[in-house]
Parts: sequence; structure tokens; C-alpha cells
Amino acid sequence: MSVYKRLASLGLELPPPPKPVAAYIPWVRTGNLIYTSGQVPIAGGKPLCVGIVPTEVPPDKANAAARLCALNMLAVLHAATGEDLDRVTRVVRLGVFVACTPNFTAQPQVGNGASELMVEVFGEEIGRHARSAVGCSALPLGVPVEVDGVFEVRG
Amino acid sequence: MSVYKRLASLGLELPPPPKPVAAYIPWVRTGNLIYTSGQVPIAGGKPLCVGIVPTEVPPDKANAAARLCALNMLAVLHAATGEDLDRVTRVVRLGVFVACTPNFTAQPQVGNGASELMVEVFGEEIGRHARSAVGCSALPLGVPVEVDGVFEVRG
Amino acid sequence: MSVYKRLASLGLELPPPPKPVAAYIPWVRTGNLIYTSGQVPIAGGKPLCVGIVPTEVPPDKANAAARLCALNMLAVLHAATGEDLDRVTRVVRLGVFVACTPNFTAQPQVGNGASELMVEVFGEEIGRHARSAVGCSALPLGVPVEVDGVFEVRG
Repeated sequence: MSVYKRLASLGLELPPPPKPVAAYIPWVRTGNLIYTSGQVPIAGGKPLCVGIVPTEVPPDKANAAARLCALNMLAVLHAATGEDLDRVTRVVRLGVFVACTPNFTAQPQVGNGASELMVEVFGEEIGRHARSAVGCSALPLGVPVEVDGVFEVRG
Repeated sequence: MSVYKRLASLGLELPPPPKPVAAYIPWVRTGNLIYTSGQVPIAGGKPLCVGIVPTEVPPDKANAAARLCALNMLAVLHAATGEDLDRVTRVVRLGVFVACTPNFTAQPQVGNGASELMVEVFGEEIGRHARSAVGCSALPLGVPVEVDGVFEVRG
Repeated sequence: MSVYKRLASLGLELPPPPKPVAAYIPWVRTGNLIYTSGQVPIAGGKPLCVGIVPTEVPPDKANAAARLCALNMLAVLHAATGEDLDRVTRVVRLGVFVACTPNFTAQPQVGNGASELMVEVFGEEIGRHARSAVGCSALPLGVPVEVDGVFEVRG
């Protein structure tokens, strides 16, 4: 099944790719790799939520925010692949940063919001990836999670 | 000398590769590069230590934890190379995350626990690598350090 | 215009590449990619400033520190390219870590200090890059910002 059919069957629509909030661009291709800039959980130009996990943003909300980061990343990748996500041959790596308190330990569960979307959209073989998930002190716009990625493409 | 002989002469045994604690996989290969997921200092399924550096975990203990992260990374890489670590042609980069207080500044000394093992095991020419070491607010399972990597392989 | 002419016209001089503060090396090349180690804002062996943003280091000072990180990165890259920065065909990615309080949200503006130097020195086509900018709890030597990078080179 094509990536776009899977997106539709999940009830997901690609947003316009978010504009970078500073002096960088959304993606760069080198060889067969596409590096995507850190994505934040913005929809319609507004953060889904702001604050630190878990005191200000509960973990399940942060998980939903990570999923939105991944959806925005797919929008960037859609543009990066000339609007052909089926050219993605592998999700190589995701980097997940969770703004959290010093005693929060469920960064992996937050990151799963992004990781699971990748597998749902690309399937097991292409979508499964290496990942690091770490806590951080704070993030741009005050959002609770930021996700970047490396993807392998053909053509 | 082969990597396995060096491991033996160091008195080290590769553990079974730790299972990812969430929806990702331990490594992905793209071209001649292997990306390994963030490794934590777990032995026999249990964290070597938990807490923030230096108030809850002293720096030398965190250094030992970083070394254990690197040993777990070698176990992953052993699997990733078809059980032939001698196919590693270069340790390209390590990323070191240290859960620490805002006034801790010895992240490099903590990270050396991982970096020095790479050089001991692969030798100077293959083992020396680029690295970033940063402080973070908290890590999965409450561990004080997490390490990920990029490796170049042949064959 | 060559990279060196641009540097001169900006009034910038490449420092000697900073020595790593621990058991790693400043850069590694694999294929056409050069990975540079995390650079800190050191000049003449001394940190430009130390402390957390924004309580101890104001954001505009942290922006200047990020620019210095990038200048040090160029010094490393100068060595990595056999003293020929014109062989850089693309700035692929920068990773920006800002030591900050939990309510600081202007990591992108701090990171711009590094990103804008890349574009000034390499021009739009080569210099524009993917980027992630995140807050962290603390950094080596107590500096407020650390920057690492991935570059594509020819020859």
C-alpha cells in the first residue's frame, strides 16, 4: 500500500510543512540521505501544548505532541521527496528531545508517539528505526517535545 | 589483533544486546553506516545506577556507566555486523547525554568512559571518533548517561 | 567568491582549531561526509562566557557565543579539508545545545549565531542547513552553548 493510502486510512492529512522559526531550512539531502530539522508540535501555526513534562504537560499529551512532530516531519519529507513519500526506503534514525523535570523517566513512551506513526505510515520494514530519546531543560516556543530525523531515499 | 581478542584481553564479555525499551530497533544500516540507538547502562536487565550527576551519582560512577553504555553498544554492533566486529572500519561519532545539575561541567570526563572503550577495543586508527557531550535534564529509567553512535562498516 | 575571501571581508580570522577537551578527535570523515565534534565558545583557550541562559548569560551574548562555536567549527573544517574550505559542497546539519533554564524558549535565536555565520561564509546555496536547537541542563566548561555539525565535501 502506498504511504498516501496509509495516511488516508489513518485519517491523517499532511499539513503544509511548518516554516522554520529561524535561520535554517527544513531539510537537506546529501547522497541518499535526507536530514530533517527539529520539528515541534505545531498545528495551524500554534503549539498543541506548552510546558514541561510531567508537571505542566502530562505524558500522554506529550506522546500526542510527539506524534504531531512526526506528522510535521512527514510534511517536510513530502516536500523533500518531490511529493513522493514512496521514495523513502528507510526511516534511519529519530532524535527525540523531551522538555522534562529531573525525575521524569518516561522519555521513551513520549517518543513512541513519533516512532509508532513512522511504522504505521511506512510499514515495519521501512518504518522501524534507530532512536535516542533524552530529557532536556526547555525547547523552542515552550513545547514539550522536538523530533529530528534521518531518512534514506531512492531516486 | 582482532576486536574479539582485544575484548578478551580487556576481560570483557559482550552481553546479549539490550532490548529496546520502546517502539524502535537497536540499529539501522544505510549504505556503509550503522546508526545505533541510544544505549543506557544496563547489565542483566538492571541499571548500574540511577540519578543525577553529581548530586546522586558521582562523576566516576557515571564514567563507569558510560563505559557500560559503550559495551552494550558493542553488543548491538556485534549483531549488526553479522557477529563480525572486525568489519567496523571506523567509529564515526558518539553522542553522549549526561543527566546532570545545572552547575555540572565535567560531561567530557563522563563521556570518556565510552570513548576510551572504543579506542581500547578498535585501536587508535579505527576507534578514535568525533563526539558531542552535553548535559540533559533526565534520561530513560533514571540512568545518568545515554550514548548513541554512528559507525562505518565494510562488506 | 572563495570562502577565505568571504571570511576576510567579514573581518574574521580562523583561530587554531581548538584541542578536544577529552578522549576524542575534532572530526571524522566517512565517504563524502565530515562529522565535527561539539564545539564550545572558546577563544585563546578561554570561554567567551560561562553560565545558564538567560539568568547568567543574556540571549544576545549566547548568540555571540554560538557564532564563536561556528568559527571554531570552521577552523576544524579547515584542517579537515586539507586547508581548503572551498571543497565544502554543503553544510548538511547543525546541532545546537543551549544551557538554559526550564522557561527559556529562544534556543532558535541563540542558534542563529552559528547558522548565520555558515550562510555568510559559504553563501546561501552551500551554507543553508538542517538544524535542531534544544535546551540542555549544562555544558562542558560551563559554557552556554555547544554546536556540532555534518558537512558534505568533494575530493
